[in-house]
Amino acid sequence: VADASIPTGRETVPDVLVRGVVDRVAALRENLGPGGRIAAIGVGCAGLINVDRGIVRLSPNLPTWRDVPLRDRLRDALQRPVSLVNDANAFAYAEGRYGAGAGCATGLFVTLGTGVGGAVVIAGKLQGGAHGLAGEIGHVSVDVDGVECPCGGRGCLEMLVGSSRIIERAERKIASGASGAAIRAATGDGEMTTRAIAMAAEAGDRTARAVFAEVGEIIGIALAGVSNFLDPDVIVIGGGVAEAGEVLWEPLRRTFDARVMAPADIRPQIRPSRFGASAGLIGAARFAYDRTTAA
Amino acid sequence: VADASIPTGRETVPDVLVRGVVDRVAALRENLGPGGRIAAIGVGCAGLINVDRGIVRLSPNLPTWRDVPLRDRLRDALQRPVSLVNDANAFAYAEGRYGAGAGCATGLFVTLGTGVGGAVVIAGKLQGGAHGLAGEIGHVSVDVDGVECPCGGRGCLEMLVGSSRIIERAERKIASGASGAAIRAATGDGEMTTRAIAMAAEAGDRTARAVFAEVGEIIGIALAGVSNFLDPDVIVIGGGVAEAGEVLWEPLRRTFDARVMAPADIRPQIRPSRFGASAGLIGAARFAYDRTTAA
Repeated sequence: VADASIPTGRETVPDVLVRGVVDRVAALRENLGPGGRIAAIGVGCAGLINVDRGIVRLSPNLPTWRDVPLRDRLRDALQRPVSLVNDANAFAYAEGRYGAGAGCATGLFVTLGTGVGGAVVIAGKLQGGAHGLAGEIGHVSVDVDGVECPCGGRGCLEMLVGSSRIIERAERKIASGASGAAIRAATGDGEMTTRAIAMAAEAGDRTARAVFAEVGEIIGIALAGVSNFLDPDVIVIGGGVAEAGEVLWEPLRRTFDARVMAPADIRPQIRPSRFGASAGLIGAARFAYDRTTAA
Repeated sequence: VADASIPTGRETVPDVLVRGVVDRVAALRENLGPGGRIAAIGVGCAGLINVDRGIVRLSPNLPTWRDVPLRDRLRDALQRPVSLVNDANAFAYAEGRYGAGAGCATGLFVTLGTGVGGAVVIAGKLQGGAHGLAGEIGHVSVDVDGVECPCGGRGCLEMLVGSSRIIERAERKIASGASGAAIRAATGDGEMTTRAIAMAAEAGDRTARAVFAEVGEIIGIALAGVSNFLDPDVIVIGGGVAEAGEVLWEPLRRTFDARVMAPADIRPQIRPSRFGASAGLIGAARFAYDRTTAA
């Protein structure tokens, strides 16, 4: 119907975010039309979420957030039922029920963006693990000697292929003498983005293609390893970085197929998300709606 | 009641193994006593196992094995019901039902030996994944730039901490000038083993302690990462290498606690296996018995 966004950064504190969301929801209500009402509000948030208590336990890219009762704060401010869920779980809820993973036996759902998130669906059911925190594929270590991650880990997948790392890869290549003209042209006046690198890569730029070849190969190896552990029949990949197109998908699929242990006849299918950038929104909203109407 | 063993190596072909097992079972039958009979035979085998068809699809440390119908070959030769299961699943069956993981909500079971195996139990049920192959934590990549693994992957956990890699670590340290006297004394006349390195480490040898410190830290980081993905409440670790004692467990636990994302109040408990070296045998036998009596 309508959307709005607020930028967040590492320094964003809960008060500021809550105020921003309240303002935007008030503005979006204008679009509802006569008779329209908000049945429930779904919130997808990166990090460790306690769904039952509606609390953000921690969120590696929002380092000031610790045990924030985000659900109740929004519910009190907005006077509507609110559900809080991990953003990758929201993505999996949408894609697993209505999207690219519908009908899978064991589905692995991965979001590639600022963070790298994940969720597992077995027989139609999101797997929460023992405390509702399962799925953090971005914080599986794929380089035990690698750099420290804000989560406390070392060499986490997110530290190798999160969007800011992809930008760093391009910057490092350019600093070491690779041509940066095409990426700069795609970037324009703003800061470099993964989208600009992807556009340059799609247009054939060697520097940009080399960045996505590295990133796709790392994701392919990492997914092959997690696939050996989980044995899914479907892997759905979404998030902004996944929109890069074949420059990412070709090395990713090629590396996955070469590295995964499963014989070809039972190798999982890797599929792009159906709902693209809206998957998390759709999943969080649907999750909130289902919870509210079931309650 | 009684046990017997046959050494296997990379070159062991199915025919030789089947003949060896048949001979040993015939000999073990002598120990059954009057009225004793074999109700079922359980086989735990490393690698990708199709439980329903009783087939070893592949086994990275037995490279000649491809789609071997091991269950039916043993059943035909021994004329008793046979069940074939992955060895780490057998371990988890024993430890998850009767051992260190009994009652866990989400349990991760890990065997450290020649290979590194794993299995997942959720709400008392072994998780097979989409094709019964789940749990291969030894083939999760923890070093995307690392050495190639016989499984086809790169930098698999098993390539860093499988028992032959632990021995290589000791040999490399000694070759670079570290003292090898204590390890050699523990080794005696035979080939170096992880047990000899562990004995030297427990006795205070610096070279051996450094080996297990490295290995424990790598396993700690790797388990922290997989724990972020799975969110278990219990992790049970067994296999021969796990018998090394505190020289392994102290760095493993310390690194795990420092690296895992879960806050301290919901951090999984890491426990040694209850059944030690017999866990796989007990689990495979019990699995076979339960399947036979339920059929």
